[in-house]
Amino acid sequence: MNAAGRPSEVELIRRYLAPLAGDAGALGLRDDCALLSPRSGEDLVLTNDAVAAGVHFFADDPPASIARKALRVNLSDLAAKGARPVGYLMALGLPSGWTEDWIADFAGGLGEDQTRYGIQLLGGDTIAAGDRLVISITAIGAVPAGTMVRRGGARPGDRILVTGTIGDAALGLKLRHGARPGTDAAFLLDRYLHPQPRTGIADALRTFAHGAMDVSDGLVGDLGKMAEAAGVAITIDSSEVPLSPATRSMIESDPRNLLVALTGGDDYEIVAAVPPDAVARFRQAAGAAGVVLSDIGAVTSGTGLTVLGPDGARLGFDTPAFDHFS
Amino acid sequence: MNAAGRPSEVELIRRYLAPLAGDAGALGLRDDCALLSPRSGEDLVLTNDAVAAGVHFFADDPPASIARKALRVNLSDLAAKGARPVGYLMALGLPSGWTEDWIADFAGGLGEDQTRYGIQLLGGDTIAAGDRLVISITAIGAVPAGTMVRRGGARPGDRILVTGTIGDAALGLKLRHGARPGTDAAFLLDRYLHPQPRTGIADALRTFAHGAMDVSDGLVGDLGKMAEAAGVAITIDSSEVPLSPATRSMIESDPRNLLVALTGGDDYEIVAAVPPDAVARFRQAAGAAGVVLSDIGAVTSGTGLTVLGPDGARLGFDTPAFDHFS
Repeated sequence: MNAAGRPSEVELIRRYLAPLAGDAGALGLRDDCALLSPRSGEDLVLTNDAVAAGVHFFADDPPASIARKALRVNLSDLAAKGARPVGYLMALGLPSGWTEDWIADFAGGLGEDQTRYGIQLLGGDTIAAGDRLVISITAIGAVPAGTMVRRGGARPGDRILVTGTIGDAALGLKLRHGARPGTDAAFLLDRYLHPQPRTGIADALRTFAHGAMDVSDGLVGDLGKMAEAAGVAITIDSSEVPLSPATRSMIESDPRNLLVALTGGDDYEIVAAVPPDAVARFRQAAGAAGVVLSDIGAVTSGTGLTVLGPDGARLGFDTPAFDHFS
Repeated sequence: MNAAGRPSEVELIRRYLAPLAGDAGALGLRDDCALLSPRSGEDLVLTNDAVAAGVHFFADDPPASIARKALRVNLSDLAAKGARPVGYLMALGLPSGWTEDWIADFAGGLGEDQTRYGIQLLGGDTIAAGDRLVISITAIGAVPAGTMVRRGGARPGDRILVTGTIGDAALGLKLRHGARPGTDAAFLLDRYLHPQPRTGIADALRTFAHGAMDVSDGLVGDLGKMAEAAGVAITIDSSEVPLSPATRSMIESDPRNLLVALTGGDDYEIVAAVPPDAVARFRQAAGAAGVVLSDIGAVTSGTGLTVLGPDGARLGFDTPAFDHFS
């Protein structure tokens, strides 16, 4: 215990983090490094996403929910690449006021998600991060060699499909910031707090998609990045973008919420470019994993993203991409 | 540019971070994830160390030096495991007052070290971290399958060897905190600011050492961890611990500085347990890489660490391990 009656770093790791790490690769967190023996014929897929209080979540969100969000935003990246999640390393930057109870709940959330997604903690670090909780996670996945689904793989003629529903988290965030809640507030708030990485369609993406990425910075901004990476044009029909009943209701109350839904961040859905003759089989495979797909547009030769409004006219966006940063 | 006249996250990545990433595995940072194709017959070695202003460095340290320290503390872990460094992912948590000039210098420091150590940036994230600069790096290395050097590999009969000199960084930190500088202050300050990861002896460690770890939290505390991991007793002779002339001079001025040297953090040297008949060959191989080794003690059956003082009596330590955390 230190002066504040809290465990030392060594004790914190021993009590709460070491139990999340296996003895095999993570060596029980008792070594300087973790050890990973890649399966023959597999590539590794690596991603690093960091989240901070006041930017990606609220400091008073439940610790287990913060843990889930920090982990799942990384699993969403792996899923979009068609990768099977393997494990993760975590740097936990604690603000000065942390408590042991907070850590216990946070570790509990990680442990539940480890079981849910079949992964384990491989290593990491805990540091004093100042006035704000900061969590950096590096997640590692695996794919059969040469099969990682690229962001830039879309080809003219492909259809653009998206998982789940778009805009819920952005409207949930708006509710957190004081927008008047409707009857569906709980659903939208949960969508902001608890991303659902679409890990179930990783195999289907590798089999059927030419290209894919996860939607984390807003559908419009991210599709723009996809078009740029592939050197193609993408056109989507906003009336085909899948919306939850709760989001539909908020757009009916205030039509400007359509723009929030299309450009807001934190969806953690996946957009994929799929050749037309594979769409039915892709849908079937995703459906078997419990994931609904919507066909929202098409890839053509050219550049840039075009979004058609309900009247068929082109929509304009001042700030197409949600920027977690500035 | 945003309101503060600074580049957006996308522009910052494009200008300063993407040039640090190759097109092969890092995909120019233009995908959600990096791709790593492990060589057949190799294991991967993974480590994550985070550093924060006011804890591991000073906020006004030169940006290039902060970059080097953030990277090198990770490379030191890889070296201790006998691993060849491959690449790294970095979460860069910027405080509110960051400037573009700062980022340019920081990226410059990373670029120089990438060349020095033969690695590249594979991915990462940039976020707003509040009042304090926080950098989390996950470094990836490789070893021939089954050859990673474990912390817990020491066996009774082994000699304990240590690279370089011990205590310089801890005394450099003391100087930063206001201790009266002597003529050797510049050397000690540089040892605090610029760890020298002993990457040159990675091959020799795999060939000759039963066990090894890097010394980052103080020689005494870390040797205690090594003894515990291996289930052995370790006895070292403090008069054999290698000290630089600058550290020797500070101990002559104030004998209490010996305890600072033995227990202070940030050495980033390597301790290894080596069978007696391999010590000469280990020394020769390390010498060829420009690394001096000192034989400071022995492994026996039993438990715990014993440190013998100049008079042969056992030294006691109130706080054996340096805690970067509390």
